[in-house]
Amino acid sequence: MSKVTFAIVAGAGAAVGAAATAALFNKSSSSSPEGPRVPSSPSPAAAAPGAKPPSKPPSGPSPVNPSGLFDYGFPGPTSDLASRTSFISSYDRRTRNPHWVAEHITPQSLSLKSGDRKNSQFLEDPSIPEKFRAKLKDYFRSGYDRGHQVPAADCKWSQSAMDETFYLSNMCPQVGEGFNRDYWAHFEDFCRRLTSKYPSVRVVTGPLYLPRKEEDGKWYVKYEVVGSPAPNVAVPTHFYKVIFAEEKDSKDGPVAVGAFVLPNAVISNSKPLQEFEVPLEMVERASGLEFADKLDVRRRKRLCAETSCSVIVKEYAQRQKAFEKK
Amino acid sequence: MSKVTFAIVAGAGAAVGAAATAALFNKSSSSSPEGPRVPSSPSPAAAAPGAKPPSKPPSGPSPVNPSGLFDYGFPGPTSDLASRTSFISSYDRRTRNPHWVAEHITPQSLSLKSGDRKNSQFLEDPSIPEKFRAKLKDYFRSGYDRGHQVPAADCKWSQSAMDETFYLSNMCPQVGEGFNRDYWAHFEDFCRRLTSKYPSVRVVTGPLYLPRKEEDGKWYVKYEVVGSPAPNVAVPTHFYKVIFAEEKDSKDGPVAVGAFVLPNAVISNSKPLQEFEVPLEMVERASGLEFADKLDVRRRKRLCAETSCSVIVKEYAQRQKAFEKK
Repeated sequence: MSKVTFAIVAGAGAAVGAAATAALFNKSSSSSPEGPRVPSSPSPAAAAPGAKPPSKPPSGPSPVNPSGLFDYGFPGPTSDLASRTSFISSYDRRTRNPHWVAEHITPQSLSLKSGDRKNSQFLEDPSIPEKFRAKLKDYFRSGYDRGHQVPAADCKWSQSAMDETFYLSNMCPQVGEGFNRDYWAHFEDFCRRLTSKYPSVRVVTGPLYLPRKEEDGKWYVKYEVVGSPAPNVAVPTHFYKVIFAEEKDSKDGPVAVGAFVLPNAVISNSKPLQEFEVPLEMVERASGLEFADKLDVRRRKRLCAETSCSVIVKEYAQRQKAFEKK
Repeated sequence: MSKVTFAIVAGAGAAVGAAATAALFNKSSSSSPEGPRVPSSPSPAAAAPGAKPPSKPPSGPSPVNPSGLFDYGFPGPTSDLASRTSFISSYDRRTRNPHWVAEHITPQSLSLKSGDRKNSQFLEDPSIPEKFRAKLKDYFRSGYDRGHQVPAADCKWSQSAMDETFYLSNMCPQVGEGFNRDYWAHFEDFCRRLTSKYPSVRVVTGPLYLPRKEEDGKWYVKYEVVGSPAPNVAVPTHFYKVIFAEEKDSKDGPVAVGAFVLPNAVISNSKPLQEFEVPLEMVERASGLEFADKLDVRRRKRLCAETSCSVIVKEYAQRQKAFEKK
C-alpha cells in the first residue's frame, strides 16, 4: 500500500491504511446507470440532521420551460466514446486528455507480432471536434512525452490495432525520462507479464489531477497546461491503472483486482511497485469514475495478494533494442 | 469585451479581440451528438501533413474483447442530469460542482412571489452517489459561500422551485463579500432585468478552472479544494453565464446571445459588466461544453449590442431587506 498520503484517500473514511484491503473487497453501495438519466422528480433528501426535503412541486402549470434550452443543442459533456480495434476510450473535452482507456490483453494477443511501431505515427483524433482536440503542436517542445495510455506494445497483434494507439486521444503529457521511458514502462511490462499467470487481463488507464497541501495549510490542485499557440492540454499530476486479472475465461470466475496511482514524475527504479497500490475507491473518488460496480464481491481477490506486484527494470536502450527486434 | 487576457481565448484563433463578434455569430463547424457514441470504426485521419491514417482493421477474428470490461460496470463519466421544477443541471463527479445549470425566467415567473428563501435550507443532493457528493461539512468554515448557480431569487414563483435551488448540486464555493454577495448578485439581477425587454430569458451558469501564466512563463491551472475531513469540492477560478434572450416566444425568432466570464474574486462595483463579456467559443473551449450548436446563425444577435450590459449596484444590506420584504 502506498506510503504517500493522498488527500483524496482520507475522504474515503474506512478505506485508509489497514482498512484498505477491506475497502477493496467491499462492493460499492451506490449503483450508477450507464448513461445520463434525468429523474423527473428529485429523490427525497436525507442530508443534514433535521433537514427537510423540498416542498412538493406545485400542481398548477409551470410558468417556465427550462428544457427549451435544448432546442439550441445539448451542452454536454460529451464523452467521445471510441471503440478501437483493441481498446475503448472516453475523452475529456475539458482537459484534452482521456477520462479512461480500457484494453484487453491475453497470452495469445501478446504472442502475435504482426505490428511494428516503426510503421505507426502520432495522429490527431479527427473524431474529436477541432476546438476540443489535442494537437500535435500542443506537445511539440512542451517538455513532455506523448505518453500512450494504452501502450503500443500491447497491440502488436495487428498493425491497425497498434496504429490506433497513436491517436492523441490515447495520450497524455507524461514526464519522459525517469517516468514514461522508465518506471511507467516497467509498470506496463508488469501488466503484460500478468498474462503468464492469468489467461485474460483487462487494464483501465487514465490521468488524475490530485490536490496537495501547500504551506498555507490549504489543499490545491495545480497542473501545467501545455499547448501552442495557447495552453490546451492539461498535464496530469498522476496516472492510474485499474487491473482486472481474470483467472478463468468465464463470466463468474474469480477476478484479481489491483489499483495503482503513480505520480507524473521521475520515479526511482528501486521503488517497489506495491508502494503505489491504492484502494480502488481512491481512484474512483479522484476520477469521478466507477470501475467495478457490477463485479460481485465474492468474485474479487486482491491482485497483490495473489501475485508479486513488482517491476523488472530494463534500461531504456536495452528495451528499445528488444522492442525493435520484435 | 473583456480586457483580461484569457489564455484559452488565444486558442480560439480568430475569436479574439475585434474578431470576437464575428466568432459569436459564426456557427460552430463541429456538430456534437447529444449522448455518448461509440463509432465502430475510426474516421479517416487528417492530422499532421503527410500523416497517413491507421492501417485497415485485420479481417480475421480478434484475439481481444475490450468491451468485456463493461461486465463490471460502465466507468462513466456519469453526468447526473437532474430535471428540477425550474431548472436542469448536470453534475461533475470529479470536481463536485455542476458542469452547468440551465434556468428559464420570464416576466410572469418573476412576478409570482409564493416562495420565500426563509423556508428553504441547504441540502446535500441524495441523487448523487455518496462518494461523489458535495457535503454540507465541506463548505463549513471553508471560507467560501455556498454560491447558488441558479439563483434562489429567480424561483420565487414556487416554494418547491426555490427549495430545489438549495441542493448543493446547484452550488459552487464562491468568494462571499465582494463577489457572491455583491458583483455576482448584481449580475444575477441584470439577468432578471432582461425580462423587461425580452419575454423569455434562458441562463446557463457554471464554473471554470482557467489557466494563468506564472513567473516561469508556463501556464498553470490552480484551484483550492475545500472539504472536511478531506479536500472534496473544487473552488472554481471563474464562473460563466451564457444568456439567451428570446425576442419572441417562437422556435424561429431572433435570440440575443451573451457570454460572460467573471473571476471568483472580489470585483469592484465600478467595473463595467461589459468588461466580462467574452466570445461564446471561449466558454466552450474552457468548459468542454457546447451551448448553441443548433442555433441558426441567422437567428443570433449579440446581447450587449441589443441592450445595455451593465449592473445596478445595490448594497447588500439594502438588497437583503428588499428580498425579505418580498
